[in-house]
Amino acid sequence: MSDIETLSRLAYEQLEIDANRIVQLIEVQMANLTMPQCPVYEEVLDTQMFGLSKEINFAVRLGLIDKDRGKEILEHLEKEVSKVHDAYYKHKEENRV
Amino acid sequence: MSDIETLSRLAYEQLEIDANRIVQLIEVQMANLTMPQCPVYEEVLDTQMFGLSKEINFAVRLGLIDKDRGKEILEHLEKEVSKVHDAYYKHKEENRV
Repeated sequence: MSDIETLSRLAYEQLEIDANRIVQLIEVQMANLTMPQCPVYEEVLDTQMFGLSKEINFAVRLGLIDKDRGKEILEHLEKEVSKVHDAYYKHKEENRV
Repeated sequence: MSDIETLSRLAYEQLEIDANRIVQLIEVQMANLTMPQCPVYEEVLDTQMFGLSKEINFAVRLGLIDKDRGKEILEHLEKEVSKVHDAYYKHKEENRV
């Protein structure tokens, strides 16, 4: 495996780590009662997504990751975040009864 | 020059381009009367600096750029931004007389 391939693999790994960190951050925020409707919550999420998209874009420009796979990382993260949202609302709904 | 060296050089170039883009963005904002005290201005600057720091940090983690040189890019950008601020205030002061 060439140096560039190793670096490309490392780039994907690091981006996955960052995406997972964002999901964890969102989970912690929800657990601490910051609701998805809260402007601060929205801002934190937007900022984090922006940061990750900057990293992905940078890696694409260096030719380390494929543009479409970069998009997939962001889309996957969005799905994970909405799963956390759904779980939050389901939990809230159940506790109301 | 190895592939990694080429990539490292490209990483520095791209970061410089991004830093220069932020300075340009700030100049355009100032020219369009968005003052440095304006919260929207502050937010745009903070967001852009955050995005660049994410890119730098990512490049450092991949071993493409040196941590200290990464810091220097951010510090240099901060100096450039404050030069734009100074020029703005100087211009404002002169026009008041």
